[in-house]
Amino acid sequence: MNLSSILRCSTAQKSNPYWRTLRTVAATTVIESIKKSARILIVCHIRPDGDSLGSGFALKKVAEKLGKQVDFVTDSDRPSHYSFIKCFYELNDKKYSGYDLGIAVDCADDTRLGKWLSVFNKCPNTINIDHHRTNNRFAKVNYVYPEKSSACEVVYDLISGDDVIDADIATLLYLGISTDTGNFMHNNTKPETLAAASKLLALGADLEAIVNDFYKNNTKNKIMLTAKAIESMRFFKDDYIVIMTITRKMLEECGCDITDTEGLIDYGMSIGSVGVAVCMTEQNVRSYKVSYRSKGIDVSVAALMFGGGGHKLAAGCVVNGHYEDVVRKIVKSVTDGIAE
Amino acid sequence: MNLSSILRCSTAQKSNPYWRTLRTVAATTVIESIKKSARILIVCHIRPDGDSLGSGFALKKVAEKLGKQVDFVTDSDRPSHYSFIKCFYELNDKKYSGYDLGIAVDCADDTRLGKWLSVFNKCPNTINIDHHRTNNRFAKVNYVYPEKSSACEVVYDLISGDDVIDADIATLLYLGISTDTGNFMHNNTKPETLAAASKLLALGADLEAIVNDFYKNNTKNKIMLTAKAIESMRFFKDDYIVIMTITRKMLEECGCDITDTEGLIDYGMSIGSVGVAVCMTEQNVRSYKVSYRSKGIDVSVAALMFGGGGHKLAAGCVVNGHYEDVVRKIVKSVTDGIAE
Repeated sequence: MNLSSILRCSTAQKSNPYWRTLRTVAATTVIESIKKSARILIVCHIRPDGDSLGSGFALKKVAEKLGKQVDFVTDSDRPSHYSFIKCFYELNDKKYSGYDLGIAVDCADDTRLGKWLSVFNKCPNTINIDHHRTNNRFAKVNYVYPEKSSACEVVYDLISGDDVIDADIATLLYLGISTDTGNFMHNNTKPETLAAASKLLALGADLEAIVNDFYKNNTKNKIMLTAKAIESMRFFKDDYIVIMTITRKMLEECGCDITDTEGLIDYGMSIGSVGVAVCMTEQNVRSYKVSYRSKGIDVSVAALMFGGGGHKLAAGCVVNGHYEDVVRKIVKSVTDGIAE
Repeated sequence: MNLSSILRCSTAQKSNPYWRTLRTVAATTVIESIKKSARILIVCHIRPDGDSLGSGFALKKVAEKLGKQVDFVTDSDRPSHYSFIKCFYELNDKKYSGYDLGIAVDCADDTRLGKWLSVFNKCPNTINIDHHRTNNRFAKVNYVYPEKSSACEVVYDLISGDDVIDADIATLLYLGISTDTGNFMHNNTKPETLAAASKLLALGADLEAIVNDFYKNNTKNKIMLTAKAIESMRFFKDDYIVIMTITRKMLEECGCDITDTEGLIDYGMSIGSVGVAVCMTEQNVRSYKVSYRSKGIDVSVAALMFGGGGHKLAAGCVVNGHYEDVVRKIVKSVTDGIAE
């Protein structure tokens, strides 16, 4: 039995004192692994979000405090709406090679590392830090805790005993915990999540910066697109299903690009009667990217009908066809799911 | 020196071990006061919000668990958008008289009790539980802690040592902490606030119910009004000032009433360039209720120019006149404030 397999967490294991001890061993090991290495590669997933950036940057700062040479990379462009992060321009700024240690953060499986997977796999030691239940344990040591809200909460747990968290690192970890929980609204918000956030705030996490630079940093253009998106809403099945549509013309009129559509689906979910919200984003003529969100029924089944996939409460696919036909098919894909 | 004056909290006192001891005495006293009483009147402020309802209902449930007869009242109608609260219909359902103890929650001064002030003042014992810095200490015993986020956080501190918080009480207290901090976004969110929320969640607070019944319980009508409110936005001074206008015609077209305008000003504040957001709500022909929100400058000065008032970051007034004149005056009221 190797450490990697032992550290896979299950509900049964959580209450097992033997497992608890091993977890403590694991928590010691991540800092020890960093200490033993000279050059470290940290990789987060493609199209990085606040949690992957927060956890990756936090570990980079920790390793640098310990005198290590660190590159933090992703197989995507830097996401501009996170440019407020102090060290933002260090992402993808590759300086080193010949890494002793590779750390993957927030990557549910190895394909999420994109082109960096081969470099990661060449490292003599590799660590996989994640919170996705479906994680395929691709590294030599896997710290995968599906009961945790976010990779940042896992990182917090792994390093909080080591007196290495300064205000900047606390801010990075807080950012990831906050964004991955929908600012403490999603059901992955547990007492431990809020306790970690509390301690990070005490360690100097800059909540005001996170709120003003991320949550209250809409552009005029995006807020105008929001109005148009709301006005596009169509309701079906006694207002249980809402479909909003973002056309390329709307983006153009508002001076927005595709990244500005992030989060618009939440306006559908904010309506009390709605059980399933759908956002159709026009990709090309007669081709729509379709995102489903659900408050209960399994929308991955609906997305699967069009060759897509996802989770029970959040799924997506691409549907081609005339607008009205696509709308009709989407409504049917949801109602079929309900019928089951 | 009586207990009432001793318990006024100041920054200097907070670090004083003598004060800390007294605070512990105070915390013991609230449950003791309830235990000594048979009939209790709890009053929250007029036009109650989530914090006043949460703290009042939580104390009612605690007192009832201790076998007491309790009325919880406000000098306003029950606010229908809080009807999801389990015990909602107990508000203003007056059954008793001849109270031994009056408790005011979340009332910054005695005028906030409205018509209930005279009944409150007749109680042989009175307690004032609040978190407003300006509280005028109107009761015999005053538990006023301005460093706390909310009345609910104060109540949590006062009763958390007594093993009386069940899941329902935890949900009520969590509701108030969450709503008064803008769901942990406002700068009154402290490490202690998140620690209290963490413990309440562990005690069974129903976060999912709060999120679905409060934060995600918009009506179709309200979300359509939101779109119209966004479209009404006008920007001034290089987008530093945004003014949105809600006319009576808009409310009528959307099937909304005045309570649906709550929170709309936040869309202005969500824009990165904006330092001051203003919402003008048409009251009568040529009369507007004006709300100011600020990210830094003191908008109470602006509101004061029209005979209104408020706090540095949130203030309001009524301005009469033709629409364009009112807009011009409002912009001037803000820019004059900046010039100072």
